[in-house]
Amino acid sequence: MTVISELVAALAPEKVLTDPDVTDSYARDRTFLEPGRPLAVVLAHTRDDVVAVMRWATEHRVPVVPRGAGTGLAGGATAVEGCVVLALHKMTAIRELSPADETAVVEPGVITADLDRAAREHGLMYAPDPSSYEISTIGGNLATNAGGLRCVKYGVTRDSAMGLEVVLADGRVINTGRRTVKGVTGYDLTGLFVGSEGTLGVITAATVRLRRAPSVYPATIAAEFTSLRDAASAVSAIIAAGCQPSLMEMLDRNTLKAIDDWRNIGLEDSTRAMLIAQSDAVDGPAVSERMAELCTANGAAFVAVSSSAQEAEELIGVRRMAYQAKERLGKCLVEDVCVPRSLLPDMIEKIEAIAVKYDVLITTVAHAGDGNLHPVFIFDHALTEPPPQVWAAADELFRETLRMGGTLTGEHGVGLLKRRWLALETGPVTEEIHHGIKRVFDPLGILNPGKAI
Amino acid sequence: MTVISELVAALAPEKVLTDPDVTDSYARDRTFLEPGRPLAVVLAHTRDDVVAVMRWATEHRVPVVPRGAGTGLAGGATAVEGCVVLALHKMTAIRELSPADETAVVEPGVITADLDRAAREHGLMYAPDPSSYEISTIGGNLATNAGGLRCVKYGVTRDSAMGLEVVLADGRVINTGRRTVKGVTGYDLTGLFVGSEGTLGVITAATVRLRRAPSVYPATIAAEFTSLRDAASAVSAIIAAGCQPSLMEMLDRNTLKAIDDWRNIGLEDSTRAMLIAQSDAVDGPAVSERMAELCTANGAAFVAVSSSAQEAEELIGVRRMAYQAKERLGKCLVEDVCVPRSLLPDMIEKIEAIAVKYDVLITTVAHAGDGNLHPVFIFDHALTEPPPQVWAAADELFRETLRMGGTLTGEHGVGLLKRRWLALETGPVTEEIHHGIKRVFDPLGILNPGKAI
Ligand SMILES: Cc1cc2nc3c(=O)[nH]c(=O)nc-3n(C[C@H](O)[C@H](O)[C@H](O)COP(=O)(O)OP(=O)(O)OC[C@H]3O[C@@H](n4cnc5c(N)ncnc54)[C@H](O)[C@@H]3O)c2cc1C
Ligand SMILES: Cc1cc2nc3c(=O)[nH]c(=O)nc-3n(C[C@H](O)[C@H](O)[C@H](O)COP(=O)(O)OP(=O)(O)OC[C@H]3O[C@@H](n4cnc5c(N)ncnc54)[C@H](O)[C@@H]3O)c2cc1C
Repeated sequence: MTVISELVAALAPEKVLTDPDVTDSYARDRTFLEPGRPLAVVLAHTRDDVVAVMRWATEHRVPVVPRGAGTGLAGGATAVEGCVVLALHKMTAIRELSPADETAVVEPGVITADLDRAAREHGLMYAPDPSSYEISTIGGNLATNAGGLRCVKYGVTRDSAMGLEVVLADGRVINTGRRTVKGVTGYDLTGLFVGSEGTLGVITAATVRLRRAPSVYPATIAAEFTSLRDAASAVSAIIAAGCQPSLMEMLDRNTLKAIDDWRNIGLEDSTRAMLIAQSDAVDGPAVSERMAELCTANGAAFVAVSSSAQEAEELIGVRRMAYQAKERLGKCLVEDVCVPRSLLPDMIEKIEAIAVKYDVLITTVAHAGDGNLHPVFIFDHALTEPPPQVWAAADELFRETLRMGGTLTGEHGVGLLKRRWLALETGPVTEEIHHGIKRVFDPLGILNPGKAI
Repeated sequence: MTVISELVAALAPEKVLTDPDVTDSYARDRTFLEPGRPLAVVLAHTRDDVVAVMRWATEHRVPVVPRGAGTGLAGGATAVEGCVVLALHKMTAIRELSPADETAVVEPGVITADLDRAAREHGLMYAPDPSSYEISTIGGNLATNAGGLRCVKYGVTRDSAMGLEVVLADGRVINTGRRTVKGVTGYDLTGLFVGSEGTLGVITAATVRLRRAPSVYPATIAAEFTSLRDAASAVSAIIAAGCQPSLMEMLDRNTLKAIDDWRNIGLEDSTRAMLIAQSDAVDGPAVSERMAELCTANGAAFVAVSSSAQEAEELIGVRRMAYQAKERLGKCLVEDVCVPRSLLPDMIEKIEAIAVKYDVLITTVAHAGDGNLHPVFIFDHALTEPPPQVWAAADELFRETLRMGGTLTGEHGVGLLKRRWLALETGPVTEEIHHGIKRVFDPLGILNPGKAI
């Protein structure tokens, strides 16, 4: 038997795809990175399918690349040459949803927004909401420790992960964490798997925390500024005043211009930045008035304040157009630096200076309340990868971020894309530890090799 | 040179204690466990002291037991024979406190409540508040992932830990995590060290998250019930109604009796349980009225509602007396089980049944909102360790907890005390992984050997 026919025998023919035209579409994520050619793609339907793949892969030392929806922006799910892509998007059961415990047990292929909708039927919500939440999976969110718009108030995916079922590299299954709110038995393996980008094990189920859904629509403001620094000052003022926004996003002029060119939002010539903020607190309308005042006090030229759910939706709608608007301009190298919140204005000015210095188009949106910025470097659609000046600009961005005490990636992960800068942030001893931990879980190095660490 | 004189030479004579009368007081925590005899106690004043100890310990293969304030309830800081106790309570600097970033950088010996007080000067707070917060250290809180009264709303110590400086077993120093709100570079080593009970490294500094201090005093209720199950039902009702209490503690009759015998709180004969709940939200008084109604609807015989900060303090004061009141009754085996919140009533009934079955006095307080119970098994002052029926009762408690999908320890840690039950919860594969991780950090096994895993 060939290696692949053994795999087919262990699963079922329809679960193993080998036609290159088909497998190619599972070999990529949302980056421009050219994948290696996979040997096969497995569509896992059950945990036992995953166990069978990992046993087989261990026996034959075949690399395995776990994959959720492939919406990643770091190359984490990019196929490596001769691998099996282990696709988990068919495992979509919400096995349990307990309103009393405010928990759910879900399979990895559940779409993030579907879980949130299921929770809302019980007056609850699933808080982590990456902008991709209508297309990304919970498994992918866990493996990247995804952030989102609400995380300024509710934290990242890690903060909603209570326990995991994980298939190890050799096919053994462990359960980490717990179904209880608290617990300190043993080392925090749940935390270790979250954000490990498929390099330590394959997540086949998760117990996640739900929260009470706010009883009111999020009172929303959108403020326009003629200076980016003013907008950043408004962010600091809103935090310092204790407004506790449930969302606080900032868009630079280049982003607004891309959106305006596409959808005509009536952008003023003088507008350099927009700040969108929400409060989902019971006194949200009062808080949003206060946030609007603070924007004005910090130089906002214009502030819109929602007075209905629909108006709120319209104001935040601009933010939702950002990614698609950018993709129309060219190919995108999406970056994800995060700095201490107080340094947001400095970082924003630095990005503008880098754009001028290297003559590249950078459009930036920021999860401003978290100090997390997404400078997107736009380059020619015709190119297969970023030209040298884009890499040079990105390199300067990373070094500047670390100099400010920041981190290379706030929420997207290291994947393949950021690996060459990784050592700058972690240093040699931590790197040694990362590889030591990797060996404990995956001594043969078959799980998503060459990624994350 | 003797081994100890080398240690003295590497530090300074006054930092190395060897007089058995003195070292004995550093050899124990708050459990009844008899410690081994330490070779010496080191009073570390700086990170470099810690580095020197670990280098020396690695060279001579001497076990090292890190120690904060020794308030632990699991035997984590209990000295092992021939060890060095590495005491960190002299490292008390708050190196930095940034109101703009809502972060602080602290040394491990800082007393928990001191950090909270420092934060309050800037309108901020340090949320994790174990009942021991006036006597425990941040380092100990991190190493045990301590919970507290406020964690029903604000999470456990882990949720406030952003980054750590850690001295490894061989004296090398790493920095984990970050100073930013978010970040996903590399594996989550911060989470791994938190709760690892000094078995993976010595924490010499931490970057912690501060939060806005509530602008109002916590509106407080205290409800008396003639049935424990009614009190537990009220807990569920309060959660289900979305009240989001910032504290929710339950005391059983035995606990109330111990407090009444000591301080005369006017306990009614018919009272079987008391529920104390707080809301620190802006609409706290309205929320507390709502919580009071829910208590009444669930059978409360009497509900007091605070109408001033002082009344709130008086109501919660009863809870603060619990531990000392129990210590007057005898020696205490303090347990720390945690069950899914919805099973709180079942667990409480089970504890009552166990008390009867084994004829032991059990007094229980619970962080009810978290499903975390502290059944305290009282035994004779004259005994050095719990009599067989107490161990048998504890054994049944643990097995019942696991059967309910709970965990052996919600916040105190495994230490020495719970090690014999550990495998019941983790299983053999996870145990193998724990030991694999331990070897990555501490290949010679000198860091707090025999604890936690
Ligand atoms: C328009 C758009 C907006 C976005 N906005 C955000 C945002 O706001 N915040 C944010 O954090 N990200 C955002 N992203 C990035 C991306 O959506 C997230 O990284 C998401 O978590 C990836 O989920 P996925 O299911 O697509 O995973 P994939 O891309 O398929 O995989 C991501 C990584 O997880 C691993 N993996 C996937 N499933 C498993 C599993 N079950 N077990 C083990 N490993 C697994 C893969 O190997 C890979 O390393 C955005 C992307 C797009 C295209
Ligand atoms: C009256 C009372 C009430 C309590 N209430 C609570 C409560 O509400 N919630 C709760 O969680 N706990 C509670 N505890 C338990 C105890 O206070 C906590 O476990 C606390 O976190 C221990 O801190 P410590 O500084 O005393 O640590 P220690 O007892 O000295 O040490 C605890 C563990 O941490 C390790 N350690 C200490 N410092 C370091 C360091 N710098 N680096 C690495 N390892 C280190 C030790 O080796 C040991 O394993 C209570 C205890 C008492 C006596």
